[in-house]
Amino acid sequence: MKNLEQRLVEAADLVTVALDALLPRADGPESRLTEAMRYAALGPGKRLRPFFALETAKMFDLEERPVLRAACALECIHAYSLVHDDLPCMDDDDMRRGRPTVHKAYDEATAVLAGDSLQTAAFEILAHPDTHDDANIRTQLIARLAIASGAKGMCGGQMIDLLGVRDDLGAVARMQRLKTGALIAYSFEIPLILARAKDAERSALMAFAQDLGLAYQIVDDLLDAEGDQDLLGKAAGGKDAAKGKANYVTLLGVEAAKERVELLAAQTKAHLDPFGAAAETLRESVDFVLDRRR
Amino acid sequence: MKNLEQRLVEAADLVTVALDALLPRADGPESRLTEAMRYAALGPGKRLRPFFALETAKMFDLEERPVLRAACALECIHAYSLVHDDLPCMDDDDMRRGRPTVHKAYDEATAVLAGDSLQTAAFEILAHPDTHDDANIRTQLIARLAIASGAKGMCGGQMIDLLGVRDDLGAVARMQRLKTGALIAYSFEIPLILARAKDAERSALMAFAQDLGLAYQIVDDLLDAEGDQDLLGKAAGGKDAAKGKANYVTLLGVEAAKERVELLAAQTKAHLDPFGAAAETLRESVDFVLDRRR
Repeated sequence: MKNLEQRLVEAADLVTVALDALLPRADGPESRLTEAMRYAALGPGKRLRPFFALETAKMFDLEERPVLRAACALECIHAYSLVHDDLPCMDDDDMRRGRPTVHKAYDEATAVLAGDSLQTAAFEILAHPDTHDDANIRTQLIARLAIASGAKGMCGGQMIDLLGVRDDLGAVARMQRLKTGALIAYSFEIPLILARAKDAERSALMAFAQDLGLAYQIVDDLLDAEGDQDLLGKAAGGKDAAKGKANYVTLLGVEAAKERVELLAAQTKAHLDPFGAAAETLRESVDFVLDRRR
Repeated sequence: MKNLEQRLVEAADLVTVALDALLPRADGPESRLTEAMRYAALGPGKRLRPFFALETAKMFDLEERPVLRAACALECIHAYSLVHDDLPCMDDDDMRRGRPTVHKAYDEATAVLAGDSLQTAAFEILAHPDTHDDANIRTQLIARLAIASGAKGMCGGQMIDLLGVRDDLGAVARMQRLKTGALIAYSFEIPLILARAKDAERSALMAFAQDLGLAYQIVDDLLDAEGDQDLLGKAAGGKDAAKGKANYVTLLGVEAAKERVELLAAQTKAHLDPFGAAAETLRESVDFVLDRRR
C-alpha cells in the first residue's frame, strides 16, 4: 500500500497535468494573460483541496474524470484568490510558494486579469459536458462553487480579514469559515454531489471539513506567530500581530492554540467513523496536513 | 405603441429591480463588500445589453423570467469588468457614469473583491433552477457567458488593449471583438439559447451583433477623440491618442470613421431582414444606440 506522502504527490501531479490541458494555451496577442494564468495555476502547490476531492471520491467509488475536472475548477478558484489576495492593495505579498507573486512576475493589471480569467475558467470547466453527462449535476457543482467563493463565502471572508473587524474567537471563526473554510468544504461537496450522497454522509463530511478547516487555520496562525519564512515560502513573522489583527494565536496564546489543534484533530477524525475503513486515507491525512512543517 | 426611448427605460428599470433582488443584501461584517457590489451594479446605466436580450426574447415569444435572470447575470459581468477596468493599475478612471468609481467611493481592495464577487454572482444566478427548468439550458448559458468573458473573450481583449499592441485595423478589430463584442453578442445568445433557435436565426443575430458591436466601438472612439466629458460622464479628451494607442479614429480619421458608422448601421439592420416586422424595435434601436450624444 502506498503511503500518504506518495498519494499526495500523485494527486498533485494528476491535477497539474489535467489543469495544464484545461487552461487556455498561450497564443495570440493576449498571450501575456494566458501565460500569467498558467504561471499562477500550474506552479508548485500541495493541491490539498483536489487531494481531498479525489480521496473522498474513492470512498464513493466514483469515476475519476468528473471529480478530476471539478477539482481543477476548484483549484482555478483557489489560484485566482491567491493572485488577487497577493496584490499590493490587498495583502501586498511579493513571494508565494518560493516564487515571485503574479503581480511581481508580470504586473498588477495582468495579475487582476489573470485572477479574473482563472475564476471564469473554473465555471467554464464545470459547465462543459465532459465534466458530467447529467447537466443537473453540473449546475449543482457550479452553484455550490459560486456560493462557496462569492460574497457570502471566500470573498466575504477576505473582506472581513482586510477590515480587521474581529476581537473575539467568534468573529475570528466566522472570518475563517468564509475565507478558507468554504472552499475546503467544497472539496468534499464535489464527491457528495457526484455520488448523489445521502444526507447522513453529507452531514458527516461537512462536519469533518469544518473542523479540519478550523484546525488548518489555527496551524496557519501558529506558523504566522512562529514566523519562519523558509517553512511557508512567503513573508511571515507575526504579520497579523504586526498589523494589530486578532487571530487564534493572538487570542488564545501559542500553547492553548496548539492544544486546540490536538483536540480538533481527534474530533475531525471521529466524524469519519460512519465510513469505516474506506476513510482510512482521509483519517491519516488529517495529521499530515496539520503538520505543515514538512 | 411605445417609442423606443420608453422601451429602453422600461427595460433598464426591469433589470435594476431584478438585480436588486438577486444581489446579496448588505449585512454581516462583510457588508462593505456587498454594498460596493450594489453600488457598482445598481447605479445609473443604460442597460443596453439586457435591453437587447429582452427585446430579442420578444421576437421568439419567450417567457420573461429566464431571459431577465440571464440578462441580470450578463449585467453583473459587465459591471464587474467596469470596476476592474477602472482600477489605478488598469485604465485608472476616477469617474464612471457621473459618479466616483468603486475604488474611489470605497478603496482598491474593496473594488477588486466587489468585481470578483459580481463575477461569481453572475454564475450563481445562471446556475439556479429559477433561471430555467432545464439544466441543459442553464449550463449552455453558463458556458457561453464564461467563453464570452474569459481569457479568449472580454479579459483577453482588455489585456490586448492594455498592451497597446495594435497598429492596423485588423488588430484594432480583434481587440474590439474580444473586449466589447463578445459580451454584446452574448446578449443575443441568451434568447437564442432559451429559444433553442435554428442555425439560420443564430447566424443572422450573431452577424447583427458583430456589426453592431463594431459600430458601437467606432462611436466610442469618436467620442474619445471629440472628448466631451459631459457626454460620457467620465474623463475623455482623446485618451487613446494621448496614450499613443491606435483606435478606429486614429487610424481612419474622424470623417472616414463617421462614414463607416453610417455604412455599418445600414448593414447591421439588414441582418434582421429574415425576422421581418418582429425585429422592428431592434432595427430602430441601432440608430438610437449609435447616437450616444443623447
